[in-house]
Amino acid sequence: MRKDLNITGHISKRYNDELEQIRYLLIEMGELVIRQVEDGLNCLLTSDTELAQQVIDNDKKINQFEIKIDEACTHIIATRQPAASDLRLIICIIKTITDIERIGDEATKLGRNALKIINSEQNPRQFNELKHLGETVIANLHQAMKAYAALDIETALQVIEQDEQINIEFDNISRLLITKMMEDPREIKNCLRITWCARAFERIGDHGKNICEYVVFLVEGKDVRHISIEQIKQTLKDF
Amino acid sequence: MRKDLNITGHISKRYNDELEQIRYLLIEMGELVIRQVEDGLNCLLTSDTELAQQVIDNDKKINQFEIKIDEACTHIIATRQPAASDLRLIICIIKTITDIERIGDEATKLGRNALKIINSEQNPRQFNELKHLGETVIANLHQAMKAYAALDIETALQVIEQDEQINIEFDNISRLLITKMMEDPREIKNCLRITWCARAFERIGDHGKNICEYVVFLVEGKDVRHISIEQIKQTLKDF
Repeated sequence: MRKDLNITGHISKRYNDELEQIRYLLIEMGELVIRQVEDGLNCLLTSDTELAQQVIDNDKKINQFEIKIDEACTHIIATRQPAASDLRLIICIIKTITDIERIGDEATKLGRNALKIINSEQNPRQFNELKHLGETVIANLHQAMKAYAALDIETALQVIEQDEQINIEFDNISRLLITKMMEDPREIKNCLRITWCARAFERIGDHGKNICEYVVFLVEGKDVRHISIEQIKQTLKDF
Repeated sequence: MRKDLNITGHISKRYNDELEQIRYLLIEMGELVIRQVEDGLNCLLTSDTELAQQVIDNDKKINQFEIKIDEACTHIIATRQPAASDLRLIICIIKTITDIERIGDEATKLGRNALKIINSEQNPRQFNELKHLGETVIANLHQAMKAYAALDIETALQVIEQDEQINIEFDNISRLLITKMMEDPREIKNCLRITWCARAFERIGDHGKNICEYVVFLVEGKDVRHISIEQIKQTLKDF
């Protein structure tokens, strides 16, 4: 189910272009942040300090995107006085970029913890589980941005549903790491760092879910935050 | 330094009332969330399971506030087509309530971890440090909401500055808890739960800082996100 918001239906071509430009900026920001998360996982898996540092440094670019898009949104509201669906789009963009920016913050946490883990004397082997969690989260994030770009509500709902699996996976990793810490207290520090990384992935999953809730709001005009996936599906059926 | 945005200067009294009502709603939401964080700390300190459960249950109210204020903001943009400073105010409100809502999420984490700690067999004694961190964060949050309500930029800058202290305090607690875990691996689980609580407080501090950055933007029209407190001060001097 793909819906169009008919944002190309304005009298003014320039207005259309402005709206489209903001949408593209957001997609560009989303692509950059996904790359950051991927690099955040890769620097952990390959012990690549240079890549870790690059993730940390690149966060500035994401922050600049946030400020730029915020300004563009404020400008378009002030000059075009958008109504109804356009306004909904712009408000959603303002909300969405906050989530994307915070995904960027979580990616830098991966980079920072990677540096600490790589520079530590111990060499933890709890990466298998983290790899799986990271890959699931990244795949979900790709889907979230795809749902956003295509205003595809079915994909959005899948992402929202998948986030519960991510939370379960995070809980399992946490438990596993606690057991490892108890078995060998010398590994506590690094196990904790891996726990922080797992937490960062779990948070990234949450933000991906938030983005998809905005997609649902954008397409259906229905606010589905703070309710379960079952309630969301029921809400959309009733609508 | 207190600045007025002259939001009472509109021709339409009804428009004024609408804007003021949204501002009051946000302040009310802020008061509720501060109470949640206070209760989150108290249920930990007094082992009060009932209070912990209440914190978890009350989160719904904060979520409802978010949706209500979002709707009011969208409505006012659509019907009043606000320009310049009013629009800045509304965009800031939309951003700010996201932070307040996430402070609410962190408060429920305090409640959830409190339940686990209270119901566990061990009785950790790492609460002293957590108490101090929690109290610092709560005091900062009060200041943040005060800065917002009075559009007081000096208080806002103090909150932003204080957040660095909160981060240092969080790091110290983390280190202390790691040492305790190494000394007595049987305490690992509870020490981790306290670490999660400390992390929740640290995140609440971040959100308080974000709110104050919006206050600066609101009053000075200058975006001071993602830069250091020294840079913020320099920016405001140049402005």
